[in-house]
Amino acid sequence: MSLLENIHCSADVKQIPQEQLPELAEEIRNRIINVTSKNGGHIGPNLGVVELTIALHRAFETPKDKFTFDVSHQGYVHKLLTGRNDERFDQIRKTGGYCGFLNRSENENDAFGAGHAGTALSAAVGMAVARDRAGTDEHVVAVVGDAAFTCGVTMEALNNASEYTKRLIIILNDNEWSISPNVGAIARYFNELITTSVYAKADRVVKNVLSKSSHGKRLLRMGARWKRGTKDFLVSSSIFETYGIRYLGPVDGHDLNQLGHYLDVAKESDQPVLLHVRTTKGKGYEPALAAPEKFHGTSPFNVKTGFGKTRTAKDPLNYQDAFGQSLVRFAKEDSSVVGITAAMPPGTGLSYMRRDCPDQFFDVGIAEEHAVLFAAGMATQGFKPVVAIYSTFLQRAYDMVMHDVCLQDLPVVFCMDRAGLSPNDGATHHGLFDIAYLRSLPNTIIAQPRDEDALSDLLWTALKTEKPFFIRYPKGEAKGIDIKENANVLPVGKAEVLKAGKVVSIWALGPCIDEAKVLAEYLDSEGFSTEVVDARFAKPLDRDLLYDCTRRYKLIVTMEDHVVTGGFGSAVLECLNQIDATIPVERIGWPDTYIGHASSIQDLKKQHGLDLETLKIRLLEKARLATEV
Amino acid sequence: MSLLENIHCSADVKQIPQEQLPELAEEIRNRIINVTSKNGGHIGPNLGVVELTIALHRAFETPKDKFTFDVSHQGYVHKLLTGRNDERFDQIRKTGGYCGFLNRSENENDAFGAGHAGTALSAAVGMAVARDRAGTDEHVVAVVGDAAFTCGVTMEALNNASEYTKRLIIILNDNEWSISPNVGAIARYFNELITTSVYAKADRVVKNVLSKSSHGKRLLRMGARWKRGTKDFLVSSSIFETYGIRYLGPVDGHDLNQLGHYLDVAKESDQPVLLHVRTTKGKGYEPALAAPEKFHGTSPFNVKTGFGKTRTAKDPLNYQDAFGQSLVRFAKEDSSVVGITAAMPPGTGLSYMRRDCPDQFFDVGIAEEHAVLFAAGMATQGFKPVVAIYSTFLQRAYDMVMHDVCLQDLPVVFCMDRAGLSPNDGATHHGLFDIAYLRSLPNTIIAQPRDEDALSDLLWTALKTEKPFFIRYPKGEAKGIDIKENANVLPVGKAEVLKAGKVVSIWALGPCIDEAKVLAEYLDSEGFSTEVVDARFAKPLDRDLLYDCTRRYKLIVTMEDHVVTGGFGSAVLECLNQIDATIPVERIGWPDTYIGHASSIQDLKKQHGLDLETLKIRLLEKARLATEV
Repeated sequence: MSLLENIHCSADVKQIPQEQLPELAEEIRNRIINVTSKNGGHIGPNLGVVELTIALHRAFETPKDKFTFDVSHQGYVHKLLTGRNDERFDQIRKTGGYCGFLNRSENENDAFGAGHAGTALSAAVGMAVARDRAGTDEHVVAVVGDAAFTCGVTMEALNNASEYTKRLIIILNDNEWSISPNVGAIARYFNELITTSVYAKADRVVKNVLSKSSHGKRLLRMGARWKRGTKDFLVSSSIFETYGIRYLGPVDGHDLNQLGHYLDVAKESDQPVLLHVRTTKGKGYEPALAAPEKFHGTSPFNVKTGFGKTRTAKDPLNYQDAFGQSLVRFAKEDSSVVGITAAMPPGTGLSYMRRDCPDQFFDVGIAEEHAVLFAAGMATQGFKPVVAIYSTFLQRAYDMVMHDVCLQDLPVVFCMDRAGLSPNDGATHHGLFDIAYLRSLPNTIIAQPRDEDALSDLLWTALKTEKPFFIRYPKGEAKGIDIKENANVLPVGKAEVLKAGKVVSIWALGPCIDEAKVLAEYLDSEGFSTEVVDARFAKPLDRDLLYDCTRRYKLIVTMEDHVVTGGFGSAVLECLNQIDATIPVERIGWPDTYIGHASSIQDLKKQHGLDLETLKIRLLEKARLATEV
Repeated sequence: MSLLENIHCSADVKQIPQEQLPELAEEIRNRIINVTSKNGGHIGPNLGVVELTIALHRAFETPKDKFTFDVSHQGYVHKLLTGRNDERFDQIRKTGGYCGFLNRSENENDAFGAGHAGTALSAAVGMAVARDRAGTDEHVVAVVGDAAFTCGVTMEALNNASEYTKRLIIILNDNEWSISPNVGAIARYFNELITTSVYAKADRVVKNVLSKSSHGKRLLRMGARWKRGTKDFLVSSSIFETYGIRYLGPVDGHDLNQLGHYLDVAKESDQPVLLHVRTTKGKGYEPALAAPEKFHGTSPFNVKTGFGKTRTAKDPLNYQDAFGQSLVRFAKEDSSVVGITAAMPPGTGLSYMRRDCPDQFFDVGIAEEHAVLFAAGMATQGFKPVVAIYSTFLQRAYDMVMHDVCLQDLPVVFCMDRAGLSPNDGATHHGLFDIAYLRSLPNTIIAQPRDEDALSDLLWTALKTEKPFFIRYPKGEAKGIDIKENANVLPVGKAEVLKAGKVVSIWALGPCIDEAKVLAEYLDSEGFSTEVVDARFAKPLDRDLLYDCTRRYKLIVTMEDHVVTGGFGSAVLECLNQIDATIPVERIGWPDTYIGHASSIQDLKKQHGLDLETLKIRLLEKARLATEV
C-alpha cells in the first residue's frame, strides 16, 4: 500500500511520519511523471513544488485555510493530497478528468481558480481582508512564482497588502523561470537575494535561532521588538520591506525540515510575510531538468527518454511555427520589424526570432500590458512591432489595445495564437472572445487565415498596412501546404469564394472553412447547392460580396471558432442590417457558456452540438425552411 | 507684451533670462486659472508642474526629444509652451478647442496621448528602445506621478527599463496625491525617501557637488566609477536601484535653478535615471491648495472665491451621488457589502462610503486590475463587493472580469460610471464599449437604469443576485426624482413598456429613453404610433417581449449610449435572429469611430447625426419604408 493512497486531506498528510516524507514525495513525483507522460501537462512546475506542497498541507489545513496558486498549473500535487488521487487524475486535462488548473467548481480545496498568471496574491489579499472583517482565523497563503513579480497586478496587490491585513503568507516560489528564463530587473534582484553573502549569513543565523524553536517563535511574537531584535540576523532592506512585507529566507524548497520550520515562523508573523523558497523546476526527473522550457508544459512523452512524438518532415507545421518562421523572413528584410512576447517565446513561435534576429526580439516577461504599450511606443517612432500573444492573454492588455494602440491608430500587429479552443487547458485558455472585444473598437482590422500560407500573406499584409491589425489563428497543426517564398499583400476587407453554389452561402473563418466544405458537399448532395466563402476578415467585412449573396442565396450560414455572442456572425447580422437585408442567417459558433477542458476539440464540439453530424442536420433543416419561404 | 506671448517652442523657452522665469511661471498660472475657471479642467495637477515643464523645455527640445506625461491631464503648460497659447486654448475641452490631454493628432510636440494612468513609462521605454535601435540621439523623458507607481503597468515597465536601454529619464512628479490622497506602501515609501535624514544629507552633498558643476558632470560620466564615487553621497539602496534605475533627488519642483541642475545631470546619465521631484498640487492658487481633491479636475468656478456653481435643493442628484448614497444605505443594512474604488472616491460617488462606512470602503489606488481581483477574492468568502469604476477604466481589468469574476461566476457588482459620453474629456474617457466587451462573456448581467430610483433598484437587485452584475450609468445629473426608501428587486432580464404604440417599437437604454419618448411623440404625430420600451437589461434581453414586438410592430428601433458595433442593438439583432424574426431594425448609437471632446453631449450628437432633429427624419423615413412593405 502506498503512502499516497491513504491521503485524502491535509490531516492525512500530517499523519505521515517526517522520515517517510521523502518516500511520499517520490510517490507523488512518479504519479505525476506517469500521468503527464500520457496526457501531457505542466510537469516541470509540479515536480518543483512537491515538497513545498507537502509542507503546506502539514502546516495548514484546507479547505479551512486558503491556498491560492499563481497560474495554478502547479496544483497537481495539491490535487493529489486533497482527495483527487483517483481515476479522474489519470485523465487529468482529458475528457472527464480533472482540470489542469485549480478550479473552484471541481473541489472545495481549490480556493481560487487560475490559468492566467499574477492573480494569486491579489485574490489572497481579498480573502485575507474578508477573513479579518469576518473575524475568523483561517490562514491565507499565496504561492507565487518569481515570474509573477514581472506582472503588474502582483505589484498592485503588493502595494496594498500590508495596509489591508496583518496576516498574509506569501510563498515566493523562486525557480528563476517563467515559462522561459525569467527576465527583467526583478529576476536579477531575486538572484541577488539568494547569492549575496549577507543573505547567506542571515540564513545561517535564522537556522540557529530556529533550532531553538520556541525561542525563535517567541521572538517573532514580540511585535515591537521584532525589528530591533532581528536587525542583526534578518535583512532589513529588501524590496519587500519597502512594501511592508516581512522577508524570510531564502530556504531550500526541497528540504522538508527547513520548509516546516520556516512555515511555522510565517504562521506566527504579525505582519504579512514573504517566504523566499528556492525550487528547481523539474526536480527529480532528469529530462525535465535538462530542458526546463520544453518540460514547462509538455505533450505526451516517453518516460524513459523524455522524448515526445518525433515530428517527421511530412507533419504539417504548427501555426505558431509558420508564424514564427514567416516573421523571421520578414524581419530579416526589414529591420524595423520587431517581435514582442510576454514570456512565451516557444508557445507563440517567437523563439525563431529569438534565435535568428535577437536584436529584433523582445521578451518583456509576464507583462502583457507593457508588451502592448511598449509596442505602441516603438510604433510612434516608425517601427513595426508584432505582438505575439495568446488570444486569451491579450485580454490582459485590452485597455492598451483600445487607449494606446487603436485610439492613436498606431500600426501594431497582433498575432493572436490559441484563437479558438485549447482543449486540454480548458476555459482559462480558450481564445473565444477576441473578435467580440476587438471589433467594437474603431480602427481595428481583424483577420483569420485559412492555412499557413494565408497566415504568411496576412502577416505581410499587416506589416504593409499602417493600422492596428489583429490576426487570429488556432493552436496546433496547420494544413501542411507550402508557404510561398514571396508573400502577397491581400486586399483588406475582401473575402474569397472557394466553392460556388446556388442556394446556401457559408461564410467561414479559419479552421471552420474545412468544416464548411464538408457541410457544403453534404448540402449539395441533399439538393441545396452551397457556396463556401473564406471570409478572411471579421472586420472590415466584405460588404459588397455579402450584399451580393443576399440577392443570390436563400440562406447565409456563418461559422467561427469563437462565441456566437458578439462574434463574426453577429458582425454579419449587423452588416446585413445596415444594408436592410432580411435573408435568414444561421450562426454557428460556441454558445454563451464557459467551455471546459477535454481530450480534443472534437469532444468539446460534440458536447456543444457543434460536431459535423449535428451541424448537417441543423443546416439541412434551415436550408429546407429557407427555401420553403 | 507678456513673456508667454513670445513662446512657441522649446527654443523660445530657452531664450527667457533665468531671472524672468518666475514671471513666466506666474503668467502661465494665471492663464491656466482663468481658462479652467471658465471651462473646468485639471487645474491642480497643471499648477503643480509649471516650473517643472518650463525646466523640461529649457533642458530639452521637443518635438525632437520625446516627453510622455502620465495621464497627461497635466499637459496644459506643455501646450502653452509649444505653440498653443491661442484661442483654441481659451476653448480647451470645449467644442473646437484643444483636448484636455496630450494628443498625437493635435500637435507634433505631443509624443504620446494619454487619458488613462500608468502608460507614460511603458510607452517611453518603447520610444527609448526605438531610438537606440535607430541610432538617433534624442532624449526620452517620462513624467510620471507618484500615484502611477500604484499602477501595475508602470511596474511592468520599470522591470524592463534598465535591461532595454541605457538612456531614459524618468521624472517622478511626487505630489502625494492621485486624485485622492495616495494609498499603499509605495506612497509611504516615497514619503520616507523625502523625509529620512540620509536622503536629506545626500541631497545637501549633491548640491555641493553640483555647485562645482563641471566636476559633478564629469563624475557622472565616469561610468564604472559612478557607484564607488557616489556611494558616499547618493543613496544606493532605493527601490529604483533594485530595478537598475539611478535615483536622483529629491528636488524642489518649484525651484527652477535646482530643477535645471538636476536635469542637466540626468541628461548625462549612462543608465536610466529617476529624478524625484516634489511638487505641490494647486501651487500658486489658494483655493486649489486648500482643497486638492476638489481642484484635481473641476467644473467652472469663480476665480476669486474658488467656488463653483452652488447646488440648490432643486438640482437633481448626479448619478454618482445617487449611487453612492444608495450604496451607503444598503451597506449599513448588510455588513458584507463593501465598496471598492481605484483611486476615484469622489468621481465614482464612493466618497459617501468612505465617510459613512469606512470599514466597508477600500481605495486600492490606481490599480483597476487589483480592484477587481481583490473583489473576486472577497466574493469567494461570502462578501458582496461593489466595484465602482468608470466604464473606460474597467477596460484595464477586462481579463480579471473574464478570468476571475465571470468564469468563476462570483457575485461581484460593477457600477460603471461615465458609461456613454464624457464630453469635455473626450475619446479617452467616453464609456462607449462596455456592453460590447462584456456581453460576449458568459454569466454576465448588464443593466442600465433610466433614472436614479431605478439605479437604486438595480443596485439592490444586483446585491441580491448571486452573479457578476454590471450596472452602467452616465456622468452627471440624474432625473431629479425621489429615490424610494425601500428598493425593489427587479426581475432580471425583464424590460418595461413605458408607452404603448401600434407601428413602431423603440427599445432604449438609460438616458436614451427620454429621447425615445420625444421621438415617439413625433412619430405618433406623423401617424406612426410608437411604443417606448425601457429595455433595462442589455443582457439577458427580454426575449419574450421582443418576440411579442416582432408580431405587433412593423419596425423596431434600438437606442443606446454606446457604439452600435457589438452593442445593445447588435444584441437585439442576435436575439431576433435566434427567433427567426425578420422585422426591420434601426439601430441608433455611436458610429465606429473615436468620438472626440466637445462642450456638450449635444454638440457631439450633432456632429455625428445623433441629434433629435436628424433622428426624427431618419426614423420617419424608416417608419415609412417599414409600413410600405
